[in-house]
Amino acid sequence: MSLIDHLADELARLPGIGRKTALRLTYHLLKTPQDEAARLADAIVAVSERVHACGRCGNFTERAECNICESSRRDVSIICVVEEASDIGAIERTGEYRGLYHVLGGRLSPLDGIGPAELNIAPLLERLDRAGTVREVLLATNPSVEGEATALYLHKLISPLGLRVTRIARGLPVGGDLEYADGVTIAEALHGRREL
Amino acid sequence: MSLIDHLADELARLPGIGRKTALRLTYHLLKTPQDEAARLADAIVAVSERVHACGRCGNFTERAECNICESSRRDVSIICVVEEASDIGAIERTGEYRGLYHVLGGRLSPLDGIGPAELNIAPLLERLDRAGTVREVLLATNPSVEGEATALYLHKLISPLGLRVTRIARGLPVGGDLEYADGVTIAEALHGRREL
Repeated sequence: MSLIDHLADELARLPGIGRKTALRLTYHLLKTPQDEAARLADAIVAVSERVHACGRCGNFTERAECNICESSRRDVSIICVVEEASDIGAIERTGEYRGLYHVLGGRLSPLDGIGPAELNIAPLLERLDRAGTVREVLLATNPSVEGEATALYLHKLISPLGLRVTRIARGLPVGGDLEYADGVTIAEALHGRREL
Repeated sequence: MSLIDHLADELARLPGIGRKTALRLTYHLLKTPQDEAARLADAIVAVSERVHACGRCGNFTERAECNICESSRRDVSIICVVEEASDIGAIERTGEYRGLYHVLGGRLSPLDGIGPAELNIAPLLERLDRAGTVREVLLATNPSVEGEATALYLHKLISPLGLRVTRIARGLPVGGDLEYADGVTIAEALHGRREL
C-alpha cells in the first residue's frame, strides 16, 4: 500500500471523516510544509501520551489533578456530573458555572452492557462522603433516554445523603422555533415553565 | 496553552475542519489507544517526508518516478494534462484511461500572479519534443474559467507541433437533472451533442 493510501486509511478511521475527505486531507498534508505536518503529528502524539484523566474528577489533564480541581477559585459546594470529559468544555465555555465536576465516563445503557459498575459512580459517592463541603449535585447527563435514566438512578442514590440534587433544564433551544420543535421538547418546555 | 487546545488548533488548520470538528477529533484521539494515535502521527510524517513529485510527470510518488511513468503497460502515445496531482487519482479510479499524465501544478490565473512560467508547461513541451511517441495531448484541466483558459493556452502552444489536442467533454453530469442544471452547462451539453 502506498503511503498516501495508508494515511488516507488512518484519517478515514476518525469520526465524521469519510474516504473522500480523508483523501482531500492527505493531499492537503502533501502540500503542507514538512515542519507544519510534523507539528500536527507531534500534537497528536503529545495528546495521546500525556493527557489522561484527572485523579479526582475524571476531567482531561496533563498533571495528576486538573485545573478545575486544583483551582482555589471554584465553588466546592457544588459538583456537576457529566457523561464525558468533553462535556466539561461545553459547560466551561458558557462561563456560567463555577463549581466542580465529576465525569461518569458514559451513561447507563443495559443493552450495551453498561451498568452502574462500569461508570465512575462509586468514586462520586466517595467524594460526596469524604469532602463534606458539597451541598448540591447538578446532574448534567445528556437529555437522551439513557442520560435521563442515569440522572434518575443517581438521584435515587444521592438524595438519601441529604444533598440537593438538581437536573439541567430541558426546553426549547435558544433561537429555536416552536413550529419545528419535536413534541417531547415542547412538552418539557411547558412542564418547565417559569414565572416571568 | 494546553495540549488539547494545541492539537485542536493544529487540526483546525486543515481544510474543511472547523473549531468544533477539531475539538471532536481531539477528544476522539484522546480515547484512541496510544499505538493507534501513533500510527496516524507516523503516517502524517511519512507522507510529508517521503512523498514528492514524480520527476517526469509530477504525480505523487515515493521514488524518483511514479508507478504510471514506470509502468510498461501504459499507452505512451497519449498524455493527459491535469492541474493537480490529486486529479490523477480521480481519473485512475474510473479505469477508463491507460495513457500517461502531466501535472501542471495549477492553472493560469493572472489575478493571482500565476502565468505560464509558474506552471510546469516547459517540461511538458520538452516531454512532447523528446519522447517522440506522443500523438495526443488530452487537456483535463477543470471546466472552470481558469481551467478553460489554461486549456486554450496549451492548445495554441501544442497544436503547431502536429499533435492531436483534445479536451475532456463538458455536459450534464450523469444522474443530473436538466431542470436544475445551470444554463452554461446545458448550452455546453447541446453544443457537444453526439449521434446515437
